[in-house]
Amino acid sequence: MKLLPTLARGSSGRAEQMRILFVGFGNVGRTVARILTKERARFPGMGALDDLVVAGIVTRRGGSLACPEGIDLLGALESMETIGRFSEDMKGFCGMTGEEASAVLDYDVLVELSTLSIENRGEPASTHIRTALGRGCHAVSANKGPVAFSYRELSEIARITGREFLFETAVMDGAPVFNLCRSCLRGCSISAVDGILNSTTNYILGRMEEGADLPEAVKEAQKIGVAEADPGHDVDGWDASAKVAALANVILGGEITPFDVDRRGIGEVTCSEVREALRSGKRLKLICRAWKDEKGIHGKVGVEEISLDHPFSLVSGGGAVLRIHTDLMGPVIITQENPDLYDTAYGVLGDLIAIRQKA
Amino acid sequence: MKLLPTLARGSSGRAEQMRILFVGFGNVGRTVARILTKERARFPGMGALDDLVVAGIVTRRGGSLACPEGIDLLGALESMETIGRFSEDMKGFCGMTGEEASAVLDYDVLVELSTLSIENRGEPASTHIRTALGRGCHAVSANKGPVAFSYRELSEIARITGREFLFETAVMDGAPVFNLCRSCLRGCSISAVDGILNSTTNYILGRMEEGADLPEAVKEAQKIGVAEADPGHDVDGWDASAKVAALANVILGGEITPFDVDRRGIGEVTCSEVREALRSGKRLKLICRAWKDEKGIHGKVGVEEISLDHPFSLVSGGGAVLRIHTDLMGPVIITQENPDLYDTAYGVLGDLIAIRQKA
Repeated sequence: MKLLPTLARGSSGRAEQMRILFVGFGNVGRTVARILTKERARFPGMGALDDLVVAGIVTRRGGSLACPEGIDLLGALESMETIGRFSEDMKGFCGMTGEEASAVLDYDVLVELSTLSIENRGEPASTHIRTALGRGCHAVSANKGPVAFSYRELSEIARITGREFLFETAVMDGAPVFNLCRSCLRGCSISAVDGILNSTTNYILGRMEEGADLPEAVKEAQKIGVAEADPGHDVDGWDASAKVAALANVILGGEITPFDVDRRGIGEVTCSEVREALRSGKRLKLICRAWKDEKGIHGKVGVEEISLDHPFSLVSGGGAVLRIHTDLMGPVIITQENPDLYDTAYGVLGDLIAIRQKA
Repeated sequence: MKLLPTLARGSSGRAEQMRILFVGFGNVGRTVARILTKERARFPGMGALDDLVVAGIVTRRGGSLACPEGIDLLGALESMETIGRFSEDMKGFCGMTGEEASAVLDYDVLVELSTLSIENRGEPASTHIRTALGRGCHAVSANKGPVAFSYRELSEIARITGREFLFETAVMDGAPVFNLCRSCLRGCSISAVDGILNSTTNYILGRMEEGADLPEAVKEAQKIGVAEADPGHDVDGWDASAKVAALANVILGGEITPFDVDRRGIGEVTCSEVREALRSGKRLKLICRAWKDEKGIHGKVGVEEISLDHPFSLVSGGGAVLRIHTDLMGPVIITQENPDLYDTAYGVLGDLIAIRQKA
C-alpha cells in the first residue's frame, strides 16, 4: 500500500481539510455518518466539520473502504443500511484491517469505534490508537478500552507527538464528563466520582421494580436494543468497571484497569430484593465509584440501596449520572436524560470539532 | 493619582505576575482572600494563582486600599474580619471609588464583586468593567448585573481589545454553566435552558412545605444567611430574572434585560398551596426558563408545580439545577449540591486561573 502525500496546508498553517479514518462502523459510526450527510441540514453546528474528508472506513465483517480522495460517506451509509455491508463495487472497496489501515493510510484523525474487549484488555483498539498517535495523527475513541486499559501510555504518546487523544463519548456519551473535569474545574482538586453509568443494568433494575424477573428484563432490554446479544458485559458489571477505570485514570490520575475494580454485577439480584427495597423507600442501583486516598486510586462497582431523595434515585431507564467531589465546591452533578445514539455520536463529533478548532 | 508602569513581561511574553483589582470585598471577596492566604495549603490547585498581586481593593463603606507593590491581602482580610473595615493606618489606605480605581490603577484583571443593582440596571458595575476592558485589562464579574444588562456591549469590547470577560459565578456559583456551554458543547445548538437558580426562594418554599408561612420562612432564611436583609430581590424573582437574562444573552445569543423577563416571584404563594401541591404528589418550585423560537429570545420566571419524579424535584435547600436542551443530545442537567461561599468564590478563582493560563 502506497503512502499518500501529506496534507496541503494553507499559509495559516491550518489544515485545509481534516481526513478521518473510521475503524468500526456500527450503530455509532452510522449515526455519525447520518448526521454529517442526510441529516446535516438539521444541525447547523456541524458546519465546523463540512470540510471533513473520510479517507477510509474499516469494518470487521462488512468489508472496508479506502480512497485518497475520500470515500463516498453517504454511499457507505446507505450500503450498510440496505445490505449490511459495503458493496464490492464501491470505490475503494478492500479488505484492510484496522491495524493495516491505521498504519498505512493517510489520515489526520483516527476515529476508533470498535467494541470494547475486556478479554483482550482493550486490544486491538489500543494498538490502532498507539499507531495513529505515533504517526502524528490525532485519535478519537468511542471505545472505552484504550482509556480503561492504556490511558497513561497513550496520553504520553499524544503529549510527545503533540496530538490529541480524546474519548468524551466513552463515558455517558456526549454528556461532557471528561471535558468538564478538564476545562471547567481548573484549580479544583477532584477527590472522587460516583454515579450510575451503565444504562442496560439501570433499565433492567427498573423493569424488576415493575415486576419482571432478571431473565425477562434482560430479554426486554435486548428487544428494545438497550442490551446487546451477549448481555454479560453489562449484567456482570464489566462495562461499568471499564468506565470506572477510565474515570479513575483520566480524572484522578490513576493507572488501573477494569480488573483492578472491585466489581459485583446485578446477576444475583432477585426480584424480591428489588421490590423489598422499594417498599422500604429505596431503589437498588448499580453504583460506580472511583476515589483517591493515601493508599492510591480505587474503583468499585456494585448494587447499592439508594434512598428516594438521593440525587441518583430519579435516574431511570437509559439515563446516567456522575457526581464529582472536589475540594473547593459542594458536589457537582451531571445528569444525562433519555440518551440515544445521537448522544453517543455527538461525543465523537464534539471531539472532532475540538480537534478541528485547534488545528 | 500617578499611573503605574506596565507590567514587566518575561521573554515568553507571559506576564510575570497577575495584578488584581477587587471592586467589592463582601462575603465572596473575603472567601476568595481566605482561600488565597490563610487556607492556601488546603487547596493545591490554587498554586496557579501563587504569583497573583492584589493592586487594590475598593469597598463602599470600609475604605479602599491601593498600592503599586501590592497590598497586604491577609492584613486586609483580617482587618475586615475584626473591625468590619480597613484600618486607616494600613499601607495604601485611601478613599477611592470603583470608578476611580478601575480607571487609574495599574492592574491586569478587574474582579467585580459589588452587589447586583436592578434599579440602576447593573451600574456602576458595568461601567467598571467597560473601563477595565477598554484599558486592555481582563474582567471577572461575580455580579450578574453586567451580564444581565450589558453582555452584548461588554463582550464586544472584550473581543476588540482581545481581553477576557468572564462571569462563571454569576449563575450557580462555580458550578460550570457558562464554561460548559462554551467549551463542552461545541457543535450543539442550544435551544433552551430551564432550572432552579435562586436558592433563597428554594429554601423558603422548602420550609413552607414543612409548615412555615412565608414571613416566617423568610425570617429563617435571613437568620441562617441565605436571604439578605432586604429579601425583595429574591422573593419577587428579580435575582432569578437577572440570571435568566444572563443565560439568554450568553448561551442563546439574546439581548434582553431582567425587565424583559416574564417575572412572577413567590410573594403570593400561600402555605396551603404549597402543602396542597405536596399532597397531590407535586412540589412548588420557582422555575427559570430561557428559550429561543422564531420570534426571538424569551425569558420567564414563575412558580410551577413539579412532579416528584421530575429531575428538579430533589433540588432542595440552597441547591440549584440547570437543564440544557440541545439539538443533538437529550437534555444535559447540571446540579449543584449544598453550595456555600466557597462555591461562589471558586467561580471567581476558576475564571482567574483561566485568564492566568491563557496569559
